Amino acid sequence: MKIARFSHDGAISYGIVDEDALVVLAGDPMFAGFDTTGERVPLGKVAALLAPVIPRSKVVAVGKNYRDHAAEMGGEAPAEPLLFLKPNTAVIGLGDAIVLPPQSSQVDFEGELAVVIGTIAKNVKAEDAADYIFGYTVANDVTARDLQKTDGQWTRAKGFDTFCPLGPVIETELDPEAAIRTRVNGELKQEAKLSDMVHDIPSIVAYASSVFTLLPGDVILTGTPAGVGPIVAGDTVEVEVEGVGSLVNPVRAAVPAR
Amino acid sequence: MKIARFSHDGAISYGIVDEDALVVLAGDPMFAGFDTTGERVPLGKVAALLAPVIPRSKVVAVGKNYRDHAAEMGGEAPAEPLLFLKPNTAVIGLGDAIVLPPQSSQVDFEGELAVVIGTIAKNVKAEDAADYIFGYTVANDVTARDLQKTDGQWTRAKGFDTFCPLGPVIETELDPEAAIRTRVNGELKQEAKLSDMVHDIPSIVAYASSVFTLLPGDVILTGTPAGVGPIVAGDTVEVEVEGVGSLVNPVRAAVPAR
Repeated sequence: MKIARFSHDGAISYGIVDEDALVVLAGDPMFAGFDTTGERVPLGKVAALLAPVIPRSKVVAVGKNYRDHAAEMGGEAPAEPLLFLKPNTAVIGLGDAIVLPPQSSQVDFEGELAVVIGTIAKNVKAEDAADYIFGYTVANDVTARDLQKTDGQWTRAKGFDTFCPLGPVIETELDPEAAIRTRVNGELKQEAKLSDMVHDIPSIVAYASSVFTLLPGDVILTGTPAGVGPIVAGDTVEVEVEGVGSLVNPVRAAVPAR
Repeated sequence: MKIARFSHDGAISYGIVDEDALVVLAGDPMFAGFDTTGERVPLGKVAALLAPVIPRSKVVAVGKNYRDHAAEMGGEAPAEPLLFLKPNTAVIGLGDAIVLPPQSSQVDFEGELAVVIGTIAKNVKAEDAADYIFGYTVANDVTARDLQKTDGQWTRAKGFDTFCPLGPVIETELDPEAAIRTRVNGELKQEAKLSDMVHDIPSIVAYASSVFTLLPGDVILTGTPAGVGPIVAGDTVEVEVEGVGSLVNPVRAAVPAR
């Protein structure tokens, strides 16, 4: 099942994707269930698909979780998941622009699968992790590579506004062998299987929940495969996870601060 | 003016501290202004003072912002503020216990002044920063020192549940020469003046807002002076900022996970 968050007739709604239409839900399904209003909105009439979730607490991300990406960054995948946070103010949706900050001269794409938490989770066991997952979406862990190196802490490099595209929808099912691909201006840059992750999804949820209480709407980015590289103003970057969807964002320069 | 968030008669309210009572406010003053309900609650009848703010977006923190603390950590204060994030799930209030996680064998206190943002802020100039500040509170940037060193990224070490005590109240005025002190079991461990900060409050707000959009209720921890050290189960840690208040928290071991 695919769940969209969208704007229509001046309001924000949730809907279930049913062929070429959205079946409108009465509320946020994470909190209010799947009752429908009875209305169907053709996809062509939707003003915009929005980021499918705005985390009320946190976006947790895992560094170096594909061996070939850890190698291209000049290291090995760590024995335990390497966690960092992105702020919810970085979240944008399908079609929103990634804005290049003036502080950086190299901004990279990082295509990733994102896990959306559905139930409050603390000290969850890996074998129970699926019970706490609401669904999956596609993410781009946009990173100012130069600042990541000079700052040491990754917070600024990965935390700028617009640096966390999420979407296009939340899919409640996932094929663990699905492919993930990133294209820039149509050219394939990253391609891997989700099963290439060093730490799998249940392990990541268990590990993160041993540190933080995870709240409904929290998002976990599961790491990026090899092939990361720069994006510049005018580019279009697309991250695709088979069976989940395709997240497309244009890239533009910042408007100078007043 | 001192603003408290408190539980009373089974509800959560906000109030202005007026001698030995709280003048109850009609809503969260950050969003709803300072209209009062007319009710006065004696401080002795308040069930609990709660963390004065739960950030809807983020707790931003600044590392190594007092020269003598940077030196005790074996380095220098960085030329620009070194930013990191703590999740809102780490926030606790006055009297709540700091819980020592089983993953760490050295948890340290770090007494800090916290700035509470009141107005949406992006690319704010330092000379305008005061317009975006709602008030000030006291914080403890609790840190698993061993994990901080082994992880490299500070997210886990500083992000455990209960690792961000805030309180006891928000004070809207601040003496920039006020003293900050931390005591463990009554023994003085840290003492400095707020004016000893390397990057002052306006500079920090300007810098952080050049990276992230700051939202009302976001909190910025401004760094800790020299003298940090471990806390163990049974300790009581108190962080005091003159004119703002005294934040006291007991320390206890985690209950083993089921």
